[in-house]
Amino acid sequence: MVFFVKHSFNHVRSYFNCQVLSWYDCGVTLGPVFAGTMTTDRLEGYRARIQAELDQVVAYWLKHSHDKVYGGFFTCLAKDGKIYDELKYVWLQGRQVWMYCRLYRTMDRFHLPEILEAAKSGGEFLRRFAWVPSAGSTGKCAFCLTRDGQPVKVQRTIFSECFYVMAMDELSRVTGDEEMQAHAESVMDQLVHWVRVDPSGLGQPQLSGDRPVNSMAVPMMLLCLVEQLGEGRPGVAEKYSEVGSWCVQQILQHVQRDGNAILENVSTDGKELPGCQGRLQNPGHALEAGWFLLQYAAGRGDQELKKVAVDKFLELSFKAGWDPEHGGLLYFLDADGHCPTQLEWSMKLWWPHCEALVAFLMAYSQTKEPGLLDRFTQVYDYTFSHFPDAEHGEWFGYLDRRGSVELNFKGGPFKGFFHVPRCLFLCEKLLDALLAETRSS
Amino acid sequence: MVFFVKHSFNHVRSYFNCQVLSWYDCGVTLGPVFAGTMTTDRLEGYRARIQAELDQVVAYWLKHSHDKVYGGFFTCLAKDGKIYDELKYVWLQGRQVWMYCRLYRTMDRFHLPEILEAAKSGGEFLRRFAWVPSAGSTGKCAFCLTRDGQPVKVQRTIFSECFYVMAMDELSRVTGDEEMQAHAESVMDQLVHWVRVDPSGLGQPQLSGDRPVNSMAVPMMLLCLVEQLGEGRPGVAEKYSEVGSWCVQQILQHVQRDGNAILENVSTDGKELPGCQGRLQNPGHALEAGWFLLQYAAGRGDQELKKVAVDKFLELSFKAGWDPEHGGLLYFLDADGHCPTQLEWSMKLWWPHCEALVAFLMAYSQTKEPGLLDRFTQVYDYTFSHFPDAEHGEWFGYLDRRGSVELNFKGGPFKGFFHVPRCLFLCEKLLDALLAETRSS
Repeated sequence: MVFFVKHSFNHVRSYFNCQVLSWYDCGVTLGPVFAGTMTTDRLEGYRARIQAELDQVVAYWLKHSHDKVYGGFFTCLAKDGKIYDELKYVWLQGRQVWMYCRLYRTMDRFHLPEILEAAKSGGEFLRRFAWVPSAGSTGKCAFCLTRDGQPVKVQRTIFSECFYVMAMDELSRVTGDEEMQAHAESVMDQLVHWVRVDPSGLGQPQLSGDRPVNSMAVPMMLLCLVEQLGEGRPGVAEKYSEVGSWCVQQILQHVQRDGNAILENVSTDGKELPGCQGRLQNPGHALEAGWFLLQYAAGRGDQELKKVAVDKFLELSFKAGWDPEHGGLLYFLDADGHCPTQLEWSMKLWWPHCEALVAFLMAYSQTKEPGLLDRFTQVYDYTFSHFPDAEHGEWFGYLDRRGSVELNFKGGPFKGFFHVPRCLFLCEKLLDALLAETRSS
Repeated sequence: MVFFVKHSFNHVRSYFNCQVLSWYDCGVTLGPVFAGTMTTDRLEGYRARIQAELDQVVAYWLKHSHDKVYGGFFTCLAKDGKIYDELKYVWLQGRQVWMYCRLYRTMDRFHLPEILEAAKSGGEFLRRFAWVPSAGSTGKCAFCLTRDGQPVKVQRTIFSECFYVMAMDELSRVTGDEEMQAHAESVMDQLVHWVRVDPSGLGQPQLSGDRPVNSMAVPMMLLCLVEQLGEGRPGVAEKYSEVGSWCVQQILQHVQRDGNAILENVSTDGKELPGCQGRLQNPGHALEAGWFLLQYAAGRGDQELKKVAVDKFLELSFKAGWDPEHGGLLYFLDADGHCPTQLEWSMKLWWPHCEALVAFLMAYSQTKEPGLLDRFTQVYDYTFSHFPDAEHGEWFGYLDRRGSVELNFKGGPFKGFFHVPRCLFLCEKLLDALLAETRSS
């Protein structure tokens, strides 16, 4: 019987691997025991592939990205791992430090001196070079540095500092460096000040036609930091508790049009904005916000928030963003069906698929709704048949609408060691927990 | 005989319309009289289509783009001309004023009160709203305004001011407004100061890793303004003569790699820069620079410069940029063959094709080299079979690599009433002159 079930499962799975189809599209009605066994087999299949992918992705970055002369990481890596540009993007430096530390701290097979040393090297590089003093403010983190740490560009946004905080906080957890932890918190306090009190330190001119906007990225990133800083530290969690609630409310303002659309930008009082800016949809971003909300809701047992996260941020975004013709998630949409003005609107990028995988697996693990596992399967099938590069390792990042690789590098100014390993890491953890539940039931 | 030639020509031309093929690829050797007649027929065919296209494009913008309440122009126009966003981009406001005035001033059929009034309305809107006072400098032109003229965004570059100068100078020529002409010159003097003396008024922070770059757009735009301001005004031409020579030298610095590549960014002392920035190629931009140089060379009888413009800026760029598989000009390339990091690198945009048409027809008109007319034909066939929209008028702007329309609007944040009509206007003028020569010979 076991043999028969495994055989059936493999047959069905091989079908899924080349077709974008949901499980329930097979139209098969299964008894509960049989269905349970099949689900376990499915989850085990996913877990095996995801673990193998995480291993090969970590190996790729360990092999190709370390700058042993100046510290930090090369992130502009060609298809075969060759460095095609030496600039160091601060977002990606911070993200790689965070990811290495998180793997080192929470997964036995990555608790390796090589990973710890690389993370420390990245952290030292950031601490030494990321900050650019600017007149009249406390300074800003650069967006981009030369290989030896000279600042090339400073953005007038909060995101370099956000990834810096993620890096420093997680690094402080593996090194036990309390001063570093305090430093991360002090930058967090600066971020909250810029966002909620006075943005003038960011250096953006105040223009009468540029009304303040609630851009989803801002409360999402702050919520992510609230969760990061507070993990396992009740005092810190308490300190940022009100900031966390505020972030959730700000994110929920993006549910618009009587609950029928997630919009990327809204007014600060939660109204739809005019024009392209107001109608913009970014399904991958909304799916990422969805799993941030699910994680937050789970930590607090908030069933209502969980339902909003699933019904709105996951389901609406998936239905809006999934390309019915070629499969995969479109990058940008206009809520009224106009053509977006972003030239890359119809491309299939790796990271929305990473976020969708995490979102649907997390939602399934919290609800056990089979339809959510089917969504995961649909995204999984597209993702694993399009993005990984079997020849040189890692994942391609940028496909055209039809699913052909259009930019063939593995790392670039916005693609580093972050979305792919974070997705694989979180999915492996979620699958481990699901499989443990299944076995104990 | 005439009938026979026309028949043959139409047969060959219909073949060209669906195939990307050069004239000489037919392998037919023709006697001089026969070939001359065929060339005349070809030129007449092009002229008829181009005149008709210019008429329909002007009609589209006259019908859809005028803001009769606040002045200025809507430029975010959908496929069918509907306004999908009301923001007013200063580049496009300035370009539309310039284009209307140039058509009004130099083409009898566009010497219409409606066009003059629209240009004046756009000029008033710009003069009233474009300038944003900024601390410690003489002010900057906004990049983007609300419908009623409130500033939304200011770029830290020179280009809003450049298109403002083009607009004001050309408008002063049709209105005879000497104060406006003087105003245009004073902004030009500010631009030259920012570019050659002190860029601090642009508001960019000075960062140690951000070394000064000779970006091709800057000397190209200044050269364009030198030609604009000096046309028919010997005193002004003399005043900016040295600036013009400097611009030409700066543009020529972009010929790199022993004369085998045009690079978009070089160091200020004319060396190749490291990394992606240094290897970037933008074939459409280089072709546009090519015809700017050709125009400059023609005005001064500079045969050497003409040869560099044709051999380097036209031929090298065309060979680098033409897609051998699907036809059309790619948007960005990397001189070492790496994948560019611009997500839109492989798209086919309308404006590089516009610039290529002008460049090759101008080069042919100056040299009478048949190979240059063949290049024009090759670009013409691709352009006219892919970009114009027979249903609603105007041209699509953004095709994917395969040539399918990927963004279906006619106007957007960077596509206004400029590249298409300027190309058609210049080509019609060039064809008129060529046909007049042919008839008189």
